[in-house]
Amino acid sequence: MNRTCYTGEVSKAHLDQTVTLFGWVHRRRDHGGVIFIDLRDRAGLAQVVVDPDNEAAFETAERIRNEYCLRITGLVRLRPAGTTNPDLLSGEVEILCREIEILNASVTPPFQLDDDNLSETTRLTHRVLDLRRPQMQRNLMLRYRVSLVARNYLDALGFIDIETPMLTRSTPEGARDYLVPSRVNPGEFFALPQSPQLFKQMLMVSGFDRYYQITKCFRDEDLRADRQPEFTQIDCETSFLDEVQIREIFEGMVREIYRQVLDVALPDPFPVMGWEEAMRRFGSDKPDLRVKLEFTDVADLMRDVGFKVFAGPANDPACRVVALRVPGGASMPRSEIDAYTQFVGIYGARGLAYIKVNDAASIPDGLQSPIVKNIHADALRALIERTGAQSGDLIFFGADRAKVVADAIGALRVKIGQSEFGRANGLFEPGWKPLWVVDFPMFEYDEGEGRYTAAHHPFTCPKPGHEDLLETDPGKALARAYDMVMNGWEVGGGSERIHRADVQRKVFKALKIDEEEARLKFGFLLDALQYGAPPHGGLAFGLDRLVTLMAGAESIRDVIAFPKTQRAQCLLTQAPSAVDEKQLRELHIRLRQTEAK
Amino acid sequence: MNRTCYTGEVSKAHLDQTVTLFGWVHRRRDHGGVIFIDLRDRAGLAQVVVDPDNEAAFETAERIRNEYCLRITGLVRLRPAGTTNPDLLSGEVEILCREIEILNASVTPPFQLDDDNLSETTRLTHRVLDLRRPQMQRNLMLRYRVSLVARNYLDALGFIDIETPMLTRSTPEGARDYLVPSRVNPGEFFALPQSPQLFKQMLMVSGFDRYYQITKCFRDEDLRADRQPEFTQIDCETSFLDEVQIREIFEGMVREIYRQVLDVALPDPFPVMGWEEAMRRFGSDKPDLRVKLEFTDVADLMRDVGFKVFAGPANDPACRVVALRVPGGASMPRSEIDAYTQFVGIYGARGLAYIKVNDAASIPDGLQSPIVKNIHADALRALIERTGAQSGDLIFFGADRAKVVADAIGALRVKIGQSEFGRANGLFEPGWKPLWVVDFPMFEYDEGEGRYTAAHHPFTCPKPGHEDLLETDPGKALARAYDMVMNGWEVGGGSERIHRADVQRKVFKALKIDEEEARLKFGFLLDALQYGAPPHGGLAFGLDRLVTLMAGAESIRDVIAFPKTQRAQCLLTQAPSAVDEKQLRELHIRLRQTEAK
Repeated sequence: MNRTCYTGEVSKAHLDQTVTLFGWVHRRRDHGGVIFIDLRDRAGLAQVVVDPDNEAAFETAERIRNEYCLRITGLVRLRPAGTTNPDLLSGEVEILCREIEILNASVTPPFQLDDDNLSETTRLTHRVLDLRRPQMQRNLMLRYRVSLVARNYLDALGFIDIETPMLTRSTPEGARDYLVPSRVNPGEFFALPQSPQLFKQMLMVSGFDRYYQITKCFRDEDLRADRQPEFTQIDCETSFLDEVQIREIFEGMVREIYRQVLDVALPDPFPVMGWEEAMRRFGSDKPDLRVKLEFTDVADLMRDVGFKVFAGPANDPACRVVALRVPGGASMPRSEIDAYTQFVGIYGARGLAYIKVNDAASIPDGLQSPIVKNIHADALRALIERTGAQSGDLIFFGADRAKVVADAIGALRVKIGQSEFGRANGLFEPGWKPLWVVDFPMFEYDEGEGRYTAAHHPFTCPKPGHEDLLETDPGKALARAYDMVMNGWEVGGGSERIHRADVQRKVFKALKIDEEEARLKFGFLLDALQYGAPPHGGLAFGLDRLVTLMAGAESIRDVIAFPKTQRAQCLLTQAPSAVDEKQLRELHIRLRQTEAK
Repeated sequence: MNRTCYTGEVSKAHLDQTVTLFGWVHRRRDHGGVIFIDLRDRAGLAQVVVDPDNEAAFETAERIRNEYCLRITGLVRLRPAGTTNPDLLSGEVEILCREIEILNASVTPPFQLDDDNLSETTRLTHRVLDLRRPQMQRNLMLRYRVSLVARNYLDALGFIDIETPMLTRSTPEGARDYLVPSRVNPGEFFALPQSPQLFKQMLMVSGFDRYYQITKCFRDEDLRADRQPEFTQIDCETSFLDEVQIREIFEGMVREIYRQVLDVALPDPFPVMGWEEAMRRFGSDKPDLRVKLEFTDVADLMRDVGFKVFAGPANDPACRVVALRVPGGASMPRSEIDAYTQFVGIYGARGLAYIKVNDAASIPDGLQSPIVKNIHADALRALIERTGAQSGDLIFFGADRAKVVADAIGALRVKIGQSEFGRANGLFEPGWKPLWVVDFPMFEYDEGEGRYTAAHHPFTCPKPGHEDLLETDPGKALARAYDMVMNGWEVGGGSERIHRADVQRKVFKALKIDEEEARLKFGFLLDALQYGAPPHGGLAFGLDRLVTLMAGAESIRDVIAFPKTQRAQCLLTQAPSAVDEKQLRELHIRLRQTEAK
């Protein structure tokens, strides 16, 4: 017998029709001698009424328990007045059951599907049941629709999906590779791709012009809340376009995704901000623009104050002294300030100085803070003026190495903005705030390794006119790179690539990758660039993150069907697992003695 | 400057318009003081004319060599009469060059792109250039369009794309796994998926109802011409439909793919044939129906003949004696017959008996063969009658264990049909011949292991009424499995799955997988089946094979951008490769002494 429609789609449009539905028993209630079944499928719930008059059906219904799988045939009728459920599409109707078939019974589930307080361990161990929960069904449907809209958008612009290898070459530059021992080539290993970067560049050299792929990437890193060993990128590349044109195409894609999937109109165009400005105003290269708080640099005001915690950094060019004015913050209780002090400690700050501005017109008496007595009145006056602080405000300070200030006060800015206080005091503007961040530095100096490393990756093109800086002053060279930021999350990033072998060699040199190493690791790319490589660029979106954000989920694990835990395990299948000695022998490897018995 | 259109798309529609094109120099010719450039991009070629009047452009054009990457702006005009090229969309027009910009130079390529005799080693080593060849561009475009049509078709029917893990658990049942050592869990390994089979079944149990995924699968097998370590499946699963409904959906998908991509109308519906009939008539479970030759079983006629080579197998129930009548085959030269005799040897046949039917009415004198004298006239007469042989025909014989006969004479059938002789004699009907093969046996007996193994996989549902055979006579049990065959290639296969834990246990038992082993390897599936698992089934298409067939390519390597060789190596990137000792140490493995130094 064929299904008429999804259970969750039964509505007034089906009134007086006989429908056949397949689904699961979400709940069964006996009420006044009648059995009510909430039947559930991927589209939602519908109420089935089994009348005792229908003896066969009623007898079957009496045996039914939660999560039984059923076929139900019945007549759609209006629910009695006062019993409609406006939360359901089917909420105005019910199905008077004519026939029930139990397609499969269920043992009692280990938890109630509508229990919202399940531990993640329980959920991941019983993932098959966890995925039945309407929220998880919605999340994965939303994920599908996001990828579908992206595909259709890209197809219409001539992008074609080309698959690149999963078994690739290990290139230890970058994150840690997952390795795959080769059976046929003893002692050799494939690596799972950290991204299709080099392959997509080679496809551009091959003349495919516009490429995309929604594909798995792999990084064997220590896992954080928003990381998985395998994750999915919408990976794109195009030839012959500059970064402005590329940004236009891909912000268009994200706008289209939001429009079709969430019915949200994102700004057109997205705002664009230089990396330097983002770091200066927000201490972050992915600022959450929903938060209405900004840094004010005040090092120049603090050079001659008695408060060494400020004066020291103020006189050190590697440091910053910034003020973060919090409008209305003077009312913040001491306990909250203490909590923030602890919080910035996570980011390496050794304390959190603050001034409560009780009366902005009366300096220094109107300012309340342990540090005020060590800062002369001129500095205080200039501070109040420059931050624009009003009576009733609070000013936090960061004074440390520039990176510590950016990380600590940048995180504090977001924390305060998103807090209850922030929301109540208009410091947080809900909604969607996309932003392009551009003009990144080419390189970051790695103190540990004593050399520059690529800020994006070593195939990123320097800005026009910055090629010479690669040799003379690498730290000053800017890149033709762009990150797409949404509400403080980096959802995508990319760059115009180097398409000339001589420029690529210069970048390798700046990164202290010598000719031999470059040839060994990236010889195939340098080769490819010799044969009339076109100007090209592209970007990659983190699909997991984008969907997490759009779904309002707490973790990317909530938008992945079968994710790994933070110990990189699958609790459902118990992967990874021990394997047979025979398998290891075939792969020409053995376990290390220290770990293996 | 923006591109007006692809180079290969310039046509009479652009007449008298100024166009801007990006592309590569396919060929440059100097002719009568004028320079002609065949400019190439992914859409094709167009002819650019550079006149010496335009000094700047002409000076640039003189420096141009093959595979330079150019931007060209010019006026579209008609080619002079008599110089049009009907093979090109742009063949009636040419572009009078106004401006040339060299976007990137090229060193001399290691081969001519239009050389059709390149070795595969050359092509794979220089894959980036090889992919510029128009044929490879067409193949990958066709591949993209196939996957796009499949996606759109499935989307319209409510199938949703859900990603399943690449890092999964090793289940040694089946082919050899690729393993990935875990760094976080010492001594443990992930496996790359051989298919998403169990995950898609669990998604059905989770209620997603209709799933698909175009995804990579991995098998570490010894490679043959049509195998790759990683390959791509269009993997599908649906709940609540029986195998007839499932076949209808998926033959519809393939019909739609052929219609949209090749403009070919496949039959509606596809013919369906039982496995037993396919083996009986064609000796193959994937018969090429373009070949108009069939087996005739003649064991019953040969039981009492003097020719032991026939009489022996004719009296052995594990053997078959079949005749393959080749209309017109009596004219086949001896050398061709000898070649076929060698050919069937590959499949284990110890010889190839034949009879030339010079005069079908005169028995035995009209029959020419070394074996005729040892077969009595009654048998010969019955043979001629049953095979329907006419004067001028040839009859080949297979007499051996049933599998050897099927393999050898089945392959011979295809070989003859596809040969020049077969094509010339109407034994081969060109075109597209799809077929569903159904009613497969559940199990095959593995002599080596002394147990039954799953013919499809151990999750395949037995036919209704065959459940008891699982215990009483497993060899007789038929499966609700179906393979889609196209022109002799298995392009897809699937089955109705087991959705009840008790039936799944019976199948494991028939496979001699004991309770403990079943729980260890497939416990998560048995668990899932307990919670109201719906009836479900699906199938998987081999995308590489389907596209190879549709593209008329010689190898699946011609429809994969970056394939591996038959030694599982990537000649472009030199993967697999040796890795650092540090990487191995982090993964808690070491190389075996015998191989490592």
